[in-house]
Amino acid sequence: MSDDFQPSDPGYRERVIASFNRQGVMETANVSIVTIAPGLVELAFPHHSRLTQQHGFIHAGIVTTVLDSACGYAAFSLMPEDAAVLSVEFKINLLAPSNGERFHAIGRVRKPGRTITVVEGDFYSIMNGERKLSATMVGTMMAIYGRKGIDG
Amino acid sequence: MSDDFQPSDPGYRERVIASFNRQGVMETANVSIVTIAPGLVELAFPHHSRLTQQHGFIHAGIVTTVLDSACGYAAFSLMPEDAAVLSVEFKINLLAPSNGERFHAIGRVRKPGRTITVVEGDFYSIMNGERKLSATMVGTMMAIYGRKGIDG
Amino acid sequence: MSDDFQPSDPGYRERVIASFNRQGVMETANVSIVTIAPGLVELAFPHHSRLTQQHGFIHAGIVTTVLDSACGYAAFSLMPEDAAVLSVEFKINLLAPSNGERFHAIGRVRKPGRTITVVEGDFYSIMNGERKLSATMVGTMMAIYGRKGIDG
Amino acid sequence: MSDDFQPSDPGYRERVIASFNRQGVMETANVSIVTIAPGLVELAFPHHSRLTQQHGFIHAGIVTTVLDSACGYAAFSLMPEDAAVLSVEFKINLLAPSNGERFHAIGRVRKPGRTITVVEGDFYSIMNGERKLSATMVGTMMAIYGRKGIDG
Repeated sequence: MSDDFQPSDPGYRERVIASFNRQGVMETANVSIVTIAPGLVELAFPHHSRLTQQHGFIHAGIVTTVLDSACGYAAFSLMPEDAAVLSVEFKINLLAPSNGERFHAIGRVRKPGRTITVVEGDFYSIMNGERKLSATMVGTMMAIYGRKGIDG
Repeated sequence: MSDDFQPSDPGYRERVIASFNRQGVMETANVSIVTIAPGLVELAFPHHSRLTQQHGFIHAGIVTTVLDSACGYAAFSLMPEDAAVLSVEFKINLLAPSNGERFHAIGRVRKPGRTITVVEGDFYSIMNGERKLSATMVGTMMAIYGRKGIDG
Repeated sequence: MSDDFQPSDPGYRERVIASFNRQGVMETANVSIVTIAPGLVELAFPHHSRLTQQHGFIHAGIVTTVLDSACGYAAFSLMPEDAAVLSVEFKINLLAPSNGERFHAIGRVRKPGRTITVVEGDFYSIMNGERKLSATMVGTMMAIYGRKGIDG
Repeated sequence: MSDDFQPSDPGYRERVIASFNRQGVMETANVSIVTIAPGLVELAFPHHSRLTQQHGFIHAGIVTTVLDSACGYAAFSLMPEDAAVLSVEFKINLLAPSNGERFHAIGRVRKPGRTITVVEGDFYSIMNGERKLSATMVGTMMAIYGRKGIDG
């Protein structure tokens, strides 16, 4: 996890930002980019009642949405310029209710590959300045080349 | 999967509906209830650009959001009246891009238990009247009893 | 799950049997083939103390071993003649202790693909003639073509 | 992962060793204990043809067997003296074929709990003195109290 990854595309930051900005759901959840580094992306968003489950916590699916984007873009940052990225599968363990004012999702590449990249992510809830691990994800991302309608 | 489950609470339908209506994110995604039966819940929602990833498909996290609610309420339908439900973990396999006009998520109880219930769900994309399996979920739901701030 | 799959290789049965016979661990666990059909493989084995965990049940990893082989060969049965199969990832939910005289694992293809095949499997414990669902698996299998040392 | 966990039972080492020695499958796979620390267990075993899949690599189910035991005992090390441990579910990503002379599985507690403990594990293949990450696991372990036939 402390690997230093070399991006194959020096323009990886701009590529991640352009794709992120096309995700309608990121605007819905008011998600912003905190960090983009080779093989690591951190995203954050504030609490909002339109993102909650029945007890007022952030819905596990929204936790997943932001973890999946963080992990997907961590993988995408290492992919060649002409690749698109799709999620193949992921698994989320919910460690504590996502209760707080603000939430951070950190996605990291565990093992890059030309087609298949294995990623992991952590989701933190921040309340009264204290950060608590709320969820963890492991997943598989796939690079897609030259499929119509799927780029970036 | 063809088990006939007996709900322990005859008011399970009203209990599911009341909890569903408290999930802010269900309104954000414009999700409605199609079916509530003992151990089975079906939800549906229309396509909207505020729910998309970068290629215009429904974001995998939104697919998860609706699958998780369908599965969680399938489990909740069999729980006692005084239980609340929380997701412990789930795993999603994405079989095809979620592209369509409308989407259905069907959650089913695979094995009920007093504390731990194992669930599974299928997610379908409907385009031009044709239904396509887009994602599948397996997960663990937990019944919570008497924890402050967590009911329903 | 009730799909009728068409094998691309009419010799799929012989191909599965030949590969199964090369798995040293199948002999260790005394596993035999019950059924091979296009997209479905059933395996079985008897209880033995060399396969147990600390309470005398079959170890979850041995449950996984037989489920993974059943699912892998279900995928392999639909692959072209020149493909090899490898597991990419899987997830197991343990529903009940695997306690019994005999155990059956049924693997099925959920969605076939040229490279990626999504599979699911169920594991049954048989005690005093009664069959009980003990575990369930969802996984991803990959077809490999032309990689040195990896065939079948 | 760098948490310092305090074991509730000072005799945790002896308790782990006693339970490990009752797992028949550990002898079958010739697994030995490398390290027991609060919330961390490392196991190791040599290559043997009775543990292989069709290409001569260690079968993914055996990889899982040893990862599951390492993770289960990592969880068990933090449990009270009267608890037994069972696996609820786990997910394995296979990053590279498990090819080598010797294999190490390291299980760690990610989040302990009275009933539910979330664990993660890494599996390494060692060939010609070089260590390669071959698989990674995330799972849920459950503490069981006072159930007949299930102790340790």
